[in-house]
Amino acid sequence: MKRDQQISLGALADLIGARLMGDPECVIQGIASLERAQSGELSFLSNRQYRKYLPSTQASAVIIGAEDVELCAVHALISENPRLSLAKAAKLFESEPELSIGVHPTVVMGKGCTIDPTASVGPQVVLGNRVRLEAGVVIGAGCVIGDDCSLGHQTQLSPRVTLYANVRMGKQCLIHSGAVIGSDGFGFANHQGAWVKMPHLGGVLIGDQVEIGANTTIDRGFLEDTVLGNNVIIDNLVQIGHNVSIGARTAIAGCVGIAGSAIIGESCLIGGGSSIAGHLQIADQVHITATSGVNHSLTTRGVYSSGFPAKPATQWRKNAARLQFLDEMARRLRVLEKAVYSDVSLTEDE
Amino acid sequence: MKRDQQISLGALADLIGARLMGDPECVIQGIASLERAQSGELSFLSNRQYRKYLPSTQASAVIIGAEDVELCAVHALISENPRLSLAKAAKLFESEPELSIGVHPTVVMGKGCTIDPTASVGPQVVLGNRVRLEAGVVIGAGCVIGDDCSLGHQTQLSPRVTLYANVRMGKQCLIHSGAVIGSDGFGFANHQGAWVKMPHLGGVLIGDQVEIGANTTIDRGFLEDTVLGNNVIIDNLVQIGHNVSIGARTAIAGCVGIAGSAIIGESCLIGGGSSIAGHLQIADQVHITATSGVNHSLTTRGVYSSGFPAKPATQWRKNAARLQFLDEMARRLRVLEKAVYSDVSLTEDE
Amino acid sequence: MKRDQQISLGALADLIGARLMGDPECVIQGIASLERAQSGELSFLSNRQYRKYLPSTQASAVIIGAEDVELCAVHALISENPRLSLAKAAKLFESEPELSIGVHPTVVMGKGCTIDPTASVGPQVVLGNRVRLEAGVVIGAGCVIGDDCSLGHQTQLSPRVTLYANVRMGKQCLIHSGAVIGSDGFGFANHQGAWVKMPHLGGVLIGDQVEIGANTTIDRGFLEDTVLGNNVIIDNLVQIGHNVSIGARTAIAGCVGIAGSAIIGESCLIGGGSSIAGHLQIADQVHITATSGVNHSLTTRGVYSSGFPAKPATQWRKNAARLQFLDEMARRLRVLEKAVYSDVSLTEDE
Repeated sequence: MKRDQQISLGALADLIGARLMGDPECVIQGIASLERAQSGELSFLSNRQYRKYLPSTQASAVIIGAEDVELCAVHALISENPRLSLAKAAKLFESEPELSIGVHPTVVMGKGCTIDPTASVGPQVVLGNRVRLEAGVVIGAGCVIGDDCSLGHQTQLSPRVTLYANVRMGKQCLIHSGAVIGSDGFGFANHQGAWVKMPHLGGVLIGDQVEIGANTTIDRGFLEDTVLGNNVIIDNLVQIGHNVSIGARTAIAGCVGIAGSAIIGESCLIGGGSSIAGHLQIADQVHITATSGVNHSLTTRGVYSSGFPAKPATQWRKNAARLQFLDEMARRLRVLEKAVYSDVSLTEDE
Repeated sequence: MKRDQQISLGALADLIGARLMGDPECVIQGIASLERAQSGELSFLSNRQYRKYLPSTQASAVIIGAEDVELCAVHALISENPRLSLAKAAKLFESEPELSIGVHPTVVMGKGCTIDPTASVGPQVVLGNRVRLEAGVVIGAGCVIGDDCSLGHQTQLSPRVTLYANVRMGKQCLIHSGAVIGSDGFGFANHQGAWVKMPHLGGVLIGDQVEIGANTTIDRGFLEDTVLGNNVIIDNLVQIGHNVSIGARTAIAGCVGIAGSAIIGESCLIGGGSSIAGHLQIADQVHITATSGVNHSLTTRGVYSSGFPAKPATQWRKNAARLQFLDEMARRLRVLEKAVYSDVSLTEDE
Repeated sequence: MKRDQQISLGALADLIGARLMGDPECVIQGIASLERAQSGELSFLSNRQYRKYLPSTQASAVIIGAEDVELCAVHALISENPRLSLAKAAKLFESEPELSIGVHPTVVMGKGCTIDPTASVGPQVVLGNRVRLEAGVVIGAGCVIGDDCSLGHQTQLSPRVTLYANVRMGKQCLIHSGAVIGSDGFGFANHQGAWVKMPHLGGVLIGDQVEIGANTTIDRGFLEDTVLGNNVIIDNLVQIGHNVSIGARTAIAGCVGIAGSAIIGESCLIGGGSSIAGHLQIADQVHITATSGVNHSLTTRGVYSSGFPAKPATQWRKNAARLQFLDEMARRLRVLEKAVYSDVSLTEDE
């Protein structure tokens, strides 16, 4: 956190688009959660679960929605979108790392690269041939960027990102450390029991304002590109197979796997630990809850699930064991119904 | 894609082992999917799902199986294994990166290494002591290779791969970026509640023609080696625990976890997102479908599953909640059957 | 394995805290599993499953618990905690890599760093500003360490680890290759459908004797720190979200995902492939079995599950399909019971 930042509540309210109920001269010099904030600090309520901490917070001011004003005993910054106001307030207290503009002397660069003079290329970076970095691009230490990659205005790679050849990214993207973009897809022909590799000729095309998490992997397309639309956001340790297409503004939480050639719509939410099979289509605005498995196309927006919540193991084991006989149970139930009702005019599931 | 590649259909048919139905003089200068291919390009049908695009494709020629010839309105390359023919055709249009033979001046090398003069060791690579690289080996930028590793003929590491000490690989393997081979297994003794690390003395032994995906991790063995047989293929973000043994030609899709000391047979298929518990055995030719959990040995070949397909969430929640009472339901059904039939000569699941 | 190590059984028994039944002069020069050990080697029995190999082992001596002595035909090292004795014995045969003390000439270092003269900083490492490395710290080749990080006494990073700014680690920790600590959490505000990034101001605070596996990712906190207690052990490819807190001595197996702001107790065991939702609490000594999904707080110690074991696919599909009608089945069973018993004095699940 930036240690010397100070701002009056009045100025802060303007900056974050909130209406101030309280003293505009009150000075804020930090930001913290409701439980931990001290006098002089700003806090926020953006998750209902933490509402209980609001009445007793030691913060000097709190960003809240209008519906919570009554519970707030300190200065209130009332926002129609408290989370958005919070993002703007946090930005104010962010300490930007000191960047050296230009190419670090340890960088190894190929032929025909176009590096904007305002770009920053960190230590031990390796650039291939014909790499193109636009204005304000930041390449962290130890990144390796393949031939013919291009990075748009202000796009940033954290340290130790790998781009294979032919990855083209838009502007203002952020890729976290360890991510690998453009590795070969998992495609093989089978010849008399042996696997023969399919050479991958496609690349990866990434829109603007995309964020990709740490150690996430995105394979290049087989012949055409794997495609991520604008403002797609992807968490850590996500796997995206070859030729996948992801629509704009779709959010993918950690540990998700998406198999090859899946086509995901716009503004979808894909919960952590979910798996999506290949060669299927997901409509726009589909919400897949955490740990679900999708193995057929989902053609209408809505919420989909297939996860089970953990239960005490002895109880779980008994029920899970019964699942093996569920088909048999269903048949026995049907037979019993017939015997009891002596007619067949019942709701039928078969 | 190689931009200046041109080949006649007649020559192509010979190269990829297909029978040509059409004009042998027709010139092909690219390769694309049925939907996107233009005149002058080759296409293919290797997944039944895309058969609908065959009649209207703009491609000049299509690789197909004999069973689809009637639907094909353009020149046909008829193959007994269209996918294999496609792999060979794609190889033709692959643009190989320009490689510098020899050791890049930024490489840091330990003592007693044996580097074949035809090997290529890229920028910023770090080699330990006694590393052995055979003819045609390629080490991408930023790789770190530990003491006593050996890489066989034409084996390639993409940029930023890590091999711990004592990883021995056969010939013509390919490891993708970010993969870590030979990290310590997750083995600890518990001493009065505290974890005490088990030192790991084994290595990793990898056969020929093995492919390992991006950011995949393979732990070294505790005392003996973790072993991957010939032609094993592994996708991205897969975890393989210490002392695991994987038989030849087994294919493992993305996001799979295999716990320590599991012994996996030959020619198995392990679907994406699956988990395999430790200390068990999987027979040859077992196919585990995506997102399954294996917690006991599978001793006969065949297909195994335990995943559920995602359903609309309200419907799913109701059914999942009932699962908690499935054992009770089964008992009640049994009691009811006894009451109704007044005898016990029924099929019995207990 | 250290090739020239030799020790008498008498000395070994003292070293590993075992009682010797056999010849104290017998010389041991290696260690191997029951099946593979040869004369002159030590073996062990720490997993009941391998008990069958005990009577026929060729090892010269075996570390065992008192309960297995009768089965043992060779010299026995009887231990109250065979696994702990084994860890100590294996330590003896571990060949430590040769380390160069000091900072390698290829290291790029920021301003104001404090590097203890006994620390070892490997080739191609990049250190930010104000990094602090205490005595005996080891930084492997190609690591990138951000501003204001500190590593306690004897903490080790394997090659190619990334620490973002403001990661503070205690003493005697070990982080494996490819791990990324301190990446931004997956936090966004939604503004008219678009994702706006929440700047992350917190860091990561890690206790003593923590081990973190290869390619594991741990996000920094949003305003406060993500926290790992002392002696937490984490396997490969684990994702830990922002603001998570993990209690001392908790063990997390491979491929686990823990979403943001989850609070995990002490001495928990979290099985491989499990998922834990955000903003919940897990009590001390909770054991979550492999592939479980936790989506609500677990407030009492005990074992919890939600995984299903894989079954032959045809059988599985039938039963899984029936699950979609389980709620309906439960209702039909209830109706049938009423019809049969003509009263409602039954156990009720609703």
